[in-house]
Amino acid sequence: MQVSVVSAVVAAVNDLEPGMPAGGLADRVADELTRFVDQHAELLLSLSADLRPLAEVARAAVLDGGKRLRPTFAYWGWRSVLPADEPGTDALLRAAASLELLQACALVHDDLLDASDTRRGQPAAHVRFGAHHTDQGWPGEPGSFGSAGALLLGDLLLSWAEEMFADAAAGLPAAHAPGARREFDLMRTEVVAGQFLDVLAQRRGDYSADEAVAVIRLKTSKYTVARPLLLGAAAAGGDQRLRAELAAYGHAVGEAFQLRDDLLGVFGDPAETGKPAGDDLREGKRTLLVALAMAAATPDQRAVLRAGLGNRQLTEEGVTELRGLLTSTGARDAVERRIVERATEAAASLTDRLRPEARTALLELAEAAAHRRF
Amino acid sequence: MQVSVVSAVVAAVNDLEPGMPAGGLADRVADELTRFVDQHAELLLSLSADLRPLAEVARAAVLDGGKRLRPTFAYWGWRSVLPADEPGTDALLRAAASLELLQACALVHDDLLDASDTRRGQPAAHVRFGAHHTDQGWPGEPGSFGSAGALLLGDLLLSWAEEMFADAAAGLPAAHAPGARREFDLMRTEVVAGQFLDVLAQRRGDYSADEAVAVIRLKTSKYTVARPLLLGAAAAGGDQRLRAELAAYGHAVGEAFQLRDDLLGVFGDPAETGKPAGDDLREGKRTLLVALAMAAATPDQRAVLRAGLGNRQLTEEGVTELRGLLTSTGARDAVERRIVERATEAAASLTDRLRPEARTALLELAEAAAHRRF
Repeated sequence: MQVSVVSAVVAAVNDLEPGMPAGGLADRVADELTRFVDQHAELLLSLSADLRPLAEVARAAVLDGGKRLRPTFAYWGWRSVLPADEPGTDALLRAAASLELLQACALVHDDLLDASDTRRGQPAAHVRFGAHHTDQGWPGEPGSFGSAGALLLGDLLLSWAEEMFADAAAGLPAAHAPGARREFDLMRTEVVAGQFLDVLAQRRGDYSADEAVAVIRLKTSKYTVARPLLLGAAAAGGDQRLRAELAAYGHAVGEAFQLRDDLLGVFGDPAETGKPAGDDLREGKRTLLVALAMAAATPDQRAVLRAGLGNRQLTEEGVTELRGLLTSTGARDAVERRIVERATEAAASLTDRLRPEARTALLELAEAAAHRRF
Repeated sequence: MQVSVVSAVVAAVNDLEPGMPAGGLADRVADELTRFVDQHAELLLSLSADLRPLAEVARAAVLDGGKRLRPTFAYWGWRSVLPADEPGTDALLRAAASLELLQACALVHDDLLDASDTRRGQPAAHVRFGAHHTDQGWPGEPGSFGSAGALLLGDLLLSWAEEMFADAAAGLPAAHAPGARREFDLMRTEVVAGQFLDVLAQRRGDYSADEAVAVIRLKTSKYTVARPLLLGAAAAGGDQRLRAELAAYGHAVGEAFQLRDDLLGVFGDPAETGKPAGDDLREGKRTLLVALAMAAATPDQRAVLRAGLGNRQLTEEGVTELRGLLTSTGARDAVERRIVERATEAAASLTDRLRPEARTALLELAEAAAHRRF
C-alpha cells in the first residue's frame, strides 16, 4: 500500500483521537472489514469449496489497502457533533467501514468497465479471475471468465456493504439511524448516476466544463466526501445548519481532491504517484482539465488533442505534446486556481457550530486533499 | 408479458385472498414497484437530465412483466403463520416486492454475462443501451456502451432492492424483522454464489450431475423458492419446525421448477415457450439433463454432445440429433422422474403446522411449477 500525503494526514488526524487503537481509524476499519469478510468467506466455502476463488478475490479487493477516506469523513461527521467517548461510536465505525465494501464494489466494476488491469499496484479483480482460469487450464477465453467473475464479485460486495451497514445501523441511536440510512441510500444512487454520466461523457465527442463538473460533483464530491460526512453527522443527530456546513465543505473538498487527482494523472511524477506517466491521457479520461483546454484551444490544437486523447498507442513524444497543450492553453493554471478556490471555500464553510477537534481535523484533511503530490 | 401456467396459478391462488385488489398479489407488487421506481427515476432526473436513458431502461427492466414468483412465495410464507387480515401485511408485501428489484438486477447482469439479447420477448438492457448509443449517433462501439449501461443499471437495481427492503422491514413486527433481514442477506450472497458456480461449470469441460444439482440448489431452489418463503415466515414469527418444513418444500419445488425449465428449453414447443427451439443447446447451458446424458453416453455419443453443445452455429438437424441423444441415453426420462419425486417430496413436506389456506396455495404452486408446459 502506497503511503500518500492524504493517508499520512488521515493517520495523523486519527491518531490524535482518544480511545483509538494504535494505527487509528484505518486500523479499526480494517479490523471490522477483516472480521466481516472472514465470516462471509466462510459462508461461501460452506456453500461449496468451488467458491474459493470468489472468496479469495473478495478478500484482496476489500483488504488490500486504500486510503479509507470515506470512513474517515463519516467518522469526523459524527465527531462534529459528539465527543470521542460517545456510546454508539463502535456502531458508527462499523457503518463507516461498510462504505469501504461499497467502494470495493465500485472499483471492481470500474476497472472492468475501463479495462484497467491494475489497482493499487496489484492485479485488478478481473485480471485475478482471468489468471485463475489460465492456471486451471480451462478451455475457452480467460478474459471472459475474468469479466464474469468481476461482475459477480462486485454484486457480492455491494450486497455485503448493505448487509454490514444495516447491521451496524441497528446499533446507532434509534432516533437518528433513519437519517444515516437516507444518506447511505442517496450515496449509492448518486455514485451509479455519476458513473453513468462519466460513461456518457466518454461516448459523446466533445463535452463542456459544466459536464465535467457535474460528473465530479456526483462521483467524488458527494460520494467520497459529502455523503459520508453527512451520514456521520445524521447518525449523531446533527442539526440542519451543521449539515449544510458539512455539505458545503464536502462539495468543495471533493472537487479539490478530484482536480488534484486529474492534474497528478497528467503532470505527476510516476515515481511518486505509482502510475505510469500519460496513462490518463492514453485512456482518454474526461476531466475538467481537458474540457478547459478544448474550449481554449485553436482549431489546430483541438485536432491534436482529439487525436491524442484516448489513443492507447500514444508515444512519449505525443504525451509530452499533449501536456504542453494542456499548459499553454491555460487549462492547467485554471485548474490550479480552482483547487485553491475550492480549498478556501471548504475552510470558510466550517464554523464553531462543529466541535473544535472535528473542525481542526477537517481543515487538515481539506489541505491534504488539495495539495497532495501523490 | 407471457401468461404461463405458473402465472395463471399464481394469479388464481392469490385472487382467492380476501383483501387483495383485483389482479391479486401481482398487481399489488406491480403497484409498489411502480411507485418506488417512479420516485427514484425522478431523483435521477433531478441529478441530471442526461440520466433519462438510465431511468427509462430501469423502468423497463423492473416493470415489464415476470411471474412475480419470489413475492408470491414470500407472501405465502407469511400466510403460513398469519391470517389474511393481519396488520403488517402491507409491509410484508413491500418487502416481497423488493425481491423483484433484486431479480431485475440478476436478469440484467445475467443477460450481459450470457450475451442474451432478449428478455421476456423484449430487448435486454444492454441491447437497449446499445440502441440508445446508435440513435444518438455517438462515435465508438455501441456494444461497449450497452455493456457499461447494463453493468451500472444492475448495480442501481441491487441498491434499490436493499433500500426498498430496509424501508419495508421497518414496518414489520420489530421482533421478527431481523430474521427476515437474515433471509434477505443470505439470499443475496447465495444467488451470486450460484451464478459463480454456474459460470465455473460452463468453463470447465465436463461436469457431474452433483455439480449441476449444486447450481440448481443455490440459483433456483434457495433463491427463487426457499429464501422468499423463509423470509415471509420469519417476518411472521414462524417457529423453527414450520420453517424447516418450508425449507424442505422450497428446495424440492425449486428443483422441480428448474428441471422443468431445462426440459422445456430443449423439448418445449417454441409456440408455447416463446423461446426459439434449441437455444439452450446452442448456448451450451449446463443442466442436469446434459450431465446425465454425458454420464450415460457412449464415447461416440459423448463426442457428438460435446461438439454440439455451445455451438452457436448448430443447425436444425444438429439440434434434432442432440435431442435424440438426450432422450436415447435415458437422461430425459431420468429428469422427468426426478421432477415427480421432487413434487411428491414437496407435497409431503407440508403438514397442518401451516395455516390450511397457505398449505393449499403452496400445493397448487408446487403442482404448477412441476407440470407447466411453458
